[in-house]
This record gives sequence, structure tokens and C-alpha cells, in this order.
Amino acid sequence: MKFRTISRVIHYRNRSPSIQLHSYRVISHLHSAPKRPSFGVAFDIDGVILRGRSPIGDSPKALRRLYDDDSGSLKIPYLFLTNGGGIPESRRAAELSQILGVNIDPLQVVQGHSPFKNLLARLENELVVATGKGEPAVVMAEYGFKKAVSIDEYASYFDSIDPLSPYKTWTTKQPCNEQRNSSESVPSFDVTSERVKAAFVVSDPVDWSRDIQVLCDILRSGGLPGEKSEHQPDMYFAADDLEYQSVFPSERLGMGAFRIALESIFNSIHHKPLKYTSFGKPNPFVFKNAESILMQLQSLISDGDINGDNKDMKIHHFETLYMIGDNPSVDIKGARQAGHPWFSILTRTGVFRGKENHTDYPADKVVNTVEEAVEFILHREAGFS
Amino acid sequence: MKFRTISRVIHYRNRSPSIQLHSYRVISHLHSAPKRPSFGVAFDIDGVILRGRSPIGDSPKALRRLYDDDSGSLKIPYLFLTNGGGIPESRRAAELSQILGVNIDPLQVVQGHSPFKNLLARLENELVVATGKGEPAVVMAEYGFKKAVSIDEYASYFDSIDPLSPYKTWTTKQPCNEQRNSSESVPSFDVTSERVKAAFVVSDPVDWSRDIQVLCDILRSGGLPGEKSEHQPDMYFAADDLEYQSVFPSERLGMGAFRIALESIFNSIHHKPLKYTSFGKPNPFVFKNAESILMQLQSLISDGDINGDNKDMKIHHFETLYMIGDNPSVDIKGARQAGHPWFSILTRTGVFRGKENHTDYPADKVVNTVEEAVEFILHREAGFS
Repeated sequence: MKFRTISRVIHYRNRSPSIQLHSYRVISHLHSAPKRPSFGVAFDIDGVILRGRSPIGDSPKALRRLYDDDSGSLKIPYLFLTNGGGIPESRRAAELSQILGVNIDPLQVVQGHSPFKNLLARLENELVVATGKGEPAVVMAEYGFKKAVSIDEYASYFDSIDPLSPYKTWTTKQPCNEQRNSSESVPSFDVTSERVKAAFVVSDPVDWSRDIQVLCDILRSGGLPGEKSEHQPDMYFAADDLEYQSVFPSERLGMGAFRIALESIFNSIHHKPLKYTSFGKPNPFVFKNAESILMQLQSLISDGDINGDNKDMKIHHFETLYMIGDNPSVDIKGARQAGHPWFSILTRTGVFRGKENHTDYPADKVVNTVEEAVEFILHREAGFS
Repeated sequence: MKFRTISRVIHYRNRSPSIQLHSYRVISHLHSAPKRPSFGVAFDIDGVILRGRSPIGDSPKALRRLYDDDSGSLKIPYLFLTNGGGIPESRRAAELSQILGVNIDPLQVVQGHSPFKNLLARLENELVVATGKGEPAVVMAEYGFKKAVSIDEYASYFDSIDPLSPYKTWTTKQPCNEQRNSSESVPSFDVTSERVKAAFVVSDPVDWSRDIQVLCDILRSGGLPGEKSEHQPDMYFAADDLEYQSVFPSERLGMGAFRIALESIFNSIHHKPLKYTSFGKPNPFVFKNAESILMQLQSLISDGDINGDNKDMKIHHFETLYMIGDNPSVDIKGARQAGHPWFSILTRTGVFRGKENHTDYPADKVVNTVEEAVEFILHREAGFS
């Protein structure tokens, strides 16, 4: 047997304790290089794999089927394609690995705000404000934004900007974000003169009254609350889900609901309608991006071939990419609109069961659970396994 | 001199320490009964009398001019007509008395939610939910509603109804509403079987994300979250101010903004548009109600006539009622639409200065301060003073 050292191979957690950027020995048979998989899988998380922090059914088992039984190495390229977020991909990958018992690489975690890093070229050194549950400013900083501040911090520099603040016996500040006020801290920018160039809703906002007020102040003033300006700073949303499946039995309002609230209020108080950009499924760009990441994973898997000289530099497009989701208007509509090579599978594990027919975008396949979805895929792709 | 005992006379605070429901001796001259004032005044509070909790200019002095210099008794009937609220009128009157240094009777405080008591006949024993800053359930209970619960309490009976709740870090314990969960408290009603018949927004909601979520759950389910129902519970708002003047230099979003958010989200998730009723200025009903209360005050003032036999039972309508406010689309529009006997005076003490011409309802008079407004009134009514 020959060995090949490669930079990263994604292993089944139980078989190998190490992850990322280590050298691994891949044992391969002399007479056949592993066949490059012609399909890949994208999983929605909430309502498919997890409900809150708990696996739905035996979703870990479904994932294990995508790994080789003997070596434990990844066999089928897959990733998580979620509109959720709020923490860096590396941390989310570690969380998911912990919960699901498989080693998940940050590359395999595509969150709603992941495409924000594409805006770095223009906004890297500009003052931008970020909001949402979790640590939105940390997310932006890790993408490379040098002057991203949380809306918590930004609002703290303006006395009485939120008239409801005295009535809030709670705070959105998480333990690592210390509470500041303008007399205790010295911001690295001057809020009275430096314009906010863009606002990012990174994940579901928590304090809607404060966020809507402060965002309205920023957007109607050209980025300098109190001023009048014709130029509206850019407004970005990581997703636009009206509702989604959480722990509660019926669906909960999502970022799309927040966007509707902000937009309808802003349009009532300002003479020009709100301009904004929403990312996330069902945006076709998101599926193109997922395809590109799956191709990277595909290369990582099949680079375990033994002949260094035969390094296959051709781009291998997938014949099929499966999107498994529970939300017809987000997951299924997105996959259908993205077209080839996407194949949509709807699971009835979310609250959208029963509504699968009430849509202009019926799924290619409807199943009860993610285990059934994976079984269906492997059976259909029987030529590979 | 003859004396007359009357049930209640409203005195200048410094001259007499007692208020309400006491017997007073009114000293009057034998040869002339006080003339019944043919005019009255309604003051908006925020942006006219107070900014936050601080008097604007010398608003207390303006109010003192409505009292007799010698006896300290009230000379001109006046009241406060505000769209704000959140605490019972008795408590607000005590607060205002404290801040302004004049003795204000609860009758003189007309808040946005004051008309809610007119709904008692139908809803007295029904389960109703109330939200808003302050103590909305206490306000409703004091009006006589036997089963009014705060939205805080109602939501606490449903696990995970607010998926953002884990991100709302409590900093203080609510003095009256202790945090509950369903295993610790026993509600006096069964949330799984007793329908909410109406929801009241008593004052500005504080936690918009939670309130909008729970109100949507109540309204789309016929009052029983999780059910499906065609019947929408009644939805009442104490006011509909889009923006108002608080401490911050530029106007802040008001209850009308919350209504817009709730309505636009609800209409996106439900097949029938939201039905609701908004009280508060500029609703003509509010001005009719204010007129009626001013007539009661008028009676109290002029019942100090010495001849018990000549008790004048005729209803004396006012020749003029002055509305002093800072918001053209709420105070001025309301007075103009109400028509005779209302006369509108706009003060430039709010942030609506400069916008007084941008309205279909220009004020009858524009002044800089409430002191100027009172001076104008007294001069105009010179025949009385």
C-alpha cells in the first residue's frame, strides 16, 4: 500500500480525534483510486437535522452514512446550508460536531451571513454596524471587517436614543460583551462625525424596538443620526425567512418578519422607500456558492488518489446536488429556481408538513425524515456506493 | 360671608395640602357668584409641558395662571390630554403634581387608554391580554377588568414561545411580574382551553419581538395559540402616534410604528388582514370625551356659588376649547377635525417645529412655548379674567 500525505481529510469523529490542517495517511488500494462522487448533499439544519439543539430522529446516523464504514473518511461531499447564524462558522462547526458526533469542518458550514465576506473589498475599513442574536460584530471582524461595531455598542454612544431603555429589565448583551456607556468607553471612531456606511443584520435581531429605532436613525440620516441626508447607507440581511421551525410546535417569526417591520416603518417616516439586499435561501446565488464549496469538498475527498502525478486538475461538475429541507418557500423553492444540478427533497419533520402542496415549487421528492432522505439518495445513486 | 361645602375643589398645591374628596370651604363674595368660564384648555404633555420628566421652559408657571391668585382655587378648567400612559390616572396625576407643583386631580388626566373602561360592559369577565411599558394589567384591573393579564405573564405559560428569550439576559427582577414558568405558577385560567377575547396595547410596547410573536399567535388562532380559527380576537391600541417627542433631540417611534409592524407582519402570515381599533388623538371621540370632562370640571369650579337653591342644572357648553400641542398630525389635526368649539394652538417646543406648514391641518395659532400659549388664551378671553 502506498501512502499519501494530504493537508486535510475529513474523518468520522470516532475513528480519528484530529481535525483540520494535519497530515493524514490515507490508505488506498493499489489497483483502484476512489471514484470521484458525482453527487453531493446540502442539508438545512433547523427542522431537518436539529430542533433547537437536539437531533431530530436519528439524524446523526443519516450523516454517518456519508462516510466510509471502514476508514471513517468522508465519502460523499456534504454541507449544511442554513439561513441561521450569529457565530463564526468555525464555532458553529464545533457545536455541530459536538451535537451530532461527526467531525464537521468549518468549510461545511454555510450560514446566512457567510456571503458577507464578499463585501469586504468595499467596506473593510468603513464603519459598519451589525446586529443579531449571538455575536454579530465578532462574525464581521472574523471576516475581516476592521470597523464593525455591534448595534449595542453603537447605540450606547447616544444618550436616550431608545426611550424604552429604562423599561428593559433585560439586555441583549452577551457575557463577553461588556456593557458600555459613553462616559466609560472611548470608541475608536467619532459617532458625531463618522458616517455609518452599511448596516448588517447578521442573525435574528433580539431587541426589535431598539434595533428598528437605531437603524431608522442611521438609514434616514446618511449614517449620522440627527442629520438629514439623501444618501441611504447600504442595508444587508443575511436571510429573509418569514417563519421557521424552532422548538415551539408552530413556526416562529424569522428575519423576514423583522425586515417587513423595519421596511414598513421606515417607508412611513421617510420620503424614499428602503433599499436593501437579502441573502440566504432561496437566493440562487446561495446555491451557486454551495455548489462551489461542494466541489472543493469533492476535490478534498478524491485527492486521496495514490498517484501524485495524476493529479486531476479538471473541474468535475456534479450530476446531482441534493437539497434536503423542511421549508418549501425557502429550501425547495431555492433548489428548484437554481435548476440543474439541484434536486429538492422536502422532509416532513418541520411544521411545514401538510403545506407541501400549497406552493408553486413542489419538491422533487417528499420524505418523512432526513434518514429517509439519505436512504433515498444512496439508493438512487446506487452506482456509486 | 357664607360658606358652602362641596365635595371637591381643586386647589393650587401650595395654598392647600389636601386633594380630592374632602370638604372645603369656599369663600365667596355675597354680591357676585364666580362667572362660569366659557372656555377650557387641553394640554398635550410630551413636548409641551414636559420633556421626559422635566418641565419645558416654565410650564408650571403657565399652569399657575389658570388658578386664582388669591384663593389658589382653579379658575379655568383644564386637563392633560395625552396619548401616553401605562399607569393608572391617579398615579399619573400624583406624578404630575409632584413635577409641576400644582395639585392635579385624576379627573384632569386623560391618557390614551382612558377610553378602554368603556369596553368593560362586554369584556369585564373575559380573558384579555394587555401589553405596554409600565403596568398595563394593573391599569386594566383598575378599570374593572377581572381577567386582564399582562403579556409577560401570558407568554410565561407557553414554553419556548419566544425563541429569542435565551438571548434576553435578565439584569433585574421585575418588581411586580416575577419571572415564571409553567411548573412554578398556577394561572387562574387554563391557557390551553380558555380563549383570549381581546388584546390591549395600553402603552408603548417594550419587547417588540416577543409581543409581535405572541400577539400573532393569539390573533391568528382565535385566542388559543396553536389552534386554527376564523375568528380574530379584538385588538385595541391606546393611540396611533407614528412618532413623538421624548428626551432625544429627534422624534422617536411611537405606538403607531408598533401597530404598523404588527399589522404588516400579521398580514403576511395570515389570510385575513388584521382588524383593530385605535384610540387617542386625533380621534374625534377623544375630543368629545375631553369636552365632557372639561364640562365636569367647569361645574366643579362654578358650583362654588353661594345659593344652594340656585343650583344651575343647565348644561353650559363652552364657547371655546383650546388644544395646545406640539404634534400637527395628532394634536392639531385632532382639534381641527373635531371642529367647534376646538381652537388649535401649536407650540414649537417639540421636534415638529418647522413642519407646522407641512400639513393639511394648519394650526389656528402657532407659538413658541406653552407660556405664550396661555398668555394668548387669557388675552383673547380677556372678558373673563
